[in-house]
Amino acid sequence: MAKITHVSPLAPAEFPNLPRVKGAEYAAAAAGIRYQGRKDVMLARLAPGSAVAGVFTKSSTRSAPVLDCQVKIGAHREEGAAIIVNAGNANAFTGRNGAEATDAVTGAVAECLKLPQARVFSSSTGVIGEPLPHGRITAKLDELAAALSETAIREAAEAIRTTDTFAKGAGASIEIDGKTVNIAGIAKGSGMIAPDMATMLVYIFTDAGVEQALLQKMLSELTDLTFNNITVDSDTSTSDTLLLAATGASGVQVTSNDGPFRAALHDVMLDLAHQVVRDGEGATKFLEIRVTGAASNTDARTHALAIANSPLVKTAVAGEDPNWGRVVMAIGKSGAAADRDLLAISFGDVLVAEQGWVSPGYREDLGAAYMKNQDLVISVDLGIGSGEATVWTCDLTHGYITINADYRS
Amino acid sequence: MAKITHVSPLAPAEFPNLPRVKGAEYAAAAAGIRYQGRKDVMLARLAPGSAVAGVFTKSSTRSAPVLDCQVKIGAHREEGAAIIVNAGNANAFTGRNGAEATDAVTGAVAECLKLPQARVFSSSTGVIGEPLPHGRITAKLDELAAALSETAIREAAEAIRTTDTFAKGAGASIEIDGKTVNIAGIAKGSGMIAPDMATMLVYIFTDAGVEQALLQKMLSELTDLTFNNITVDSDTSTSDTLLLAATGASGVQVTSNDGPFRAALHDVMLDLAHQVVRDGEGATKFLEIRVTGAASNTDARTHALAIANSPLVKTAVAGEDPNWGRVVMAIGKSGAAADRDLLAISFGDVLVAEQGWVSPGYREDLGAAYMKNQDLVISVDLGIGSGEATVWTCDLTHGYITINADYRS
Repeated sequence: MAKITHVSPLAPAEFPNLPRVKGAEYAAAAAGIRYQGRKDVMLARLAPGSAVAGVFTKSSTRSAPVLDCQVKIGAHREEGAAIIVNAGNANAFTGRNGAEATDAVTGAVAECLKLPQARVFSSSTGVIGEPLPHGRITAKLDELAAALSETAIREAAEAIRTTDTFAKGAGASIEIDGKTVNIAGIAKGSGMIAPDMATMLVYIFTDAGVEQALLQKMLSELTDLTFNNITVDSDTSTSDTLLLAATGASGVQVTSNDGPFRAALHDVMLDLAHQVVRDGEGATKFLEIRVTGAASNTDARTHALAIANSPLVKTAVAGEDPNWGRVVMAIGKSGAAADRDLLAISFGDVLVAEQGWVSPGYREDLGAAYMKNQDLVISVDLGIGSGEATVWTCDLTHGYITINADYRS
Repeated sequence: MAKITHVSPLAPAEFPNLPRVKGAEYAAAAAGIRYQGRKDVMLARLAPGSAVAGVFTKSSTRSAPVLDCQVKIGAHREEGAAIIVNAGNANAFTGRNGAEATDAVTGAVAECLKLPQARVFSSSTGVIGEPLPHGRITAKLDELAAALSETAIREAAEAIRTTDTFAKGAGASIEIDGKTVNIAGIAKGSGMIAPDMATMLVYIFTDAGVEQALLQKMLSELTDLTFNNITVDSDTSTSDTLLLAATGASGVQVTSNDGPFRAALHDVMLDLAHQVVRDGEGATKFLEIRVTGAASNTDARTHALAIANSPLVKTAVAGEDPNWGRVVMAIGKSGAAADRDLLAISFGDVLVAEQGWVSPGYREDLGAAYMKNQDLVISVDLGIGSGEATVWTCDLTHGYITINADYRS
């Protein structure tokens, strides 16, 4: 893996000032799992009564920590909960050893924090196929427990980075019934992507009270509108994990799936999802693909992902080439319904193609000038129905090849 | 499109000496459609009684010539047939203009060669969205007709090139019932791929006599074993066309779908398919992915294509990195059935992983040494059933980015 020596040109100016979430505490420590001279383990403790929801990679070769989380998620327990995450080793494709290591870590956290082991969730990210040196993690638990603090979320975001060029965070504070409800989330990932070092992990905390079934439903629905609509290179990690914990410590109980809390949670999730794309390996352009007029929302998403994952579209964007022909190609190959002679394609506000051919008013210099922007929107209207979808991706550059073709050692 | 200044390192040493196919004649001419100083149109004439079979891109945005061929294919006619192909302009996404241009070209060929227009097949490859200057093609028809020759197949192969770095041909001669049957094929393409300039076109000629329905069945089945199992970048052209013409002039009638003719045709098709991969844009490695032990052949192919199309696998191969973790990732994301703890993965003869973990006997230096080869085999056994599939691809390199991120003009 190539050494990351720069920050993505698409990175936000700075890490945001995240709100304090009552009932959620964080700590980070340097366990030396793979990296030296930096923190590589984070621990979060959630107050008694917290609900925890989760979504996970659908990979059939998913890692031991993911399988363990999937067993544990769902039940609302009174005892509180904890999340422990390490960077540097994914504990994936490690045979029976993988489950033993996960058990050792979550068991030790449970003992240290006096929690049932069924309420300790874990994630691991980093190289795969190597046994997790779990003793290095458990040796740090007392130090981590002593350091737990409601204000240490940025340290947690820093500790879970692998190939990320910047730490990712997003938050919101809203008023409900005269009380403040806070949401704070952190993420790591440079794509959906590389099992080596670039798994996507996301942890979101709120002091709203939300019953577990509603929390899970909200998380699943919003994931389909945010994290499931981003792609860097179409590859899917064996370890992708998204956990959402609601402590209830704000004193506000959320019972609606259609109110201000859901809207704020959506915005936090979309912000984090965009930050993952903005840290896509080698990315120099942030690209939004909007598809409208499809036969269904599902068809619209299929078209949008075909465009977003096309190496030819992504390299054209890297080259600042308004190559609408490649967009036509991607729509054609997607497998979803399209009528060539009803298609309209715009780059930003520039109408490029309509009715099966280049638009009469289109001038190549307009398209070329638009493509110089760092943030780009490609819009496609199928002209068939009312289905729509939006996905986000980045360009495919020499930087991606350099990062991924470099020898691991 | 970047200028092609070198020949692929994976190219065969030279164009093969193709057998003369009785009843098939070829000619090429310089029509100046886009390129200057080279031939860019080829014409093939097939003797009366020839059967023609075809397979075409499934793209919903396919080009006017493809739509025209699909209408015409299927009927066995006594009048003979012709194939006219131009390079430099794809006549794709050109609205109503596209069908008019195709009609003009095939109509003029029909008149020149005294054939029904329904027996004139055409293909166009090159830039899309620009009107085909069909007058430049029809102006060359008398010259082409006068030059028709059974020995000019190499000139035809040269004329249909766009981004190809070498002309592609393959042939076979077999004895059936004491008579010689000849097969000769040509192809162009640097992938499945780019609508700009890299459509795949294949024309195969034989002097065997084969009834049209059998010819079509044989072609479709063999395409699934050859051209449908290659991929360069997962992108699909709007113009992909494969035509197979059987003149019957050898005096040998083939009536079996399971004899030496089919075997020879398979070998010619596989040879041409491999040549397309070997000319993949930026390719430096030729990669065979063998999947066995899957729940079905379909599942095996899904896994094999997921591995072959994974940017992370392809960049690892480019970097000569025996990164079996990325193979595990690709299997996991493919959607087909897999059991992590039954997987076995080999690079060449080197057993890398088995039973859900790295193989006890595996040494990284063995894998690294194997990856230095130019032609590589990655084998995966799922350990579930008896389904199997083999696909072929190339690596993903800086050369691909350079070729495709360069501005068109």
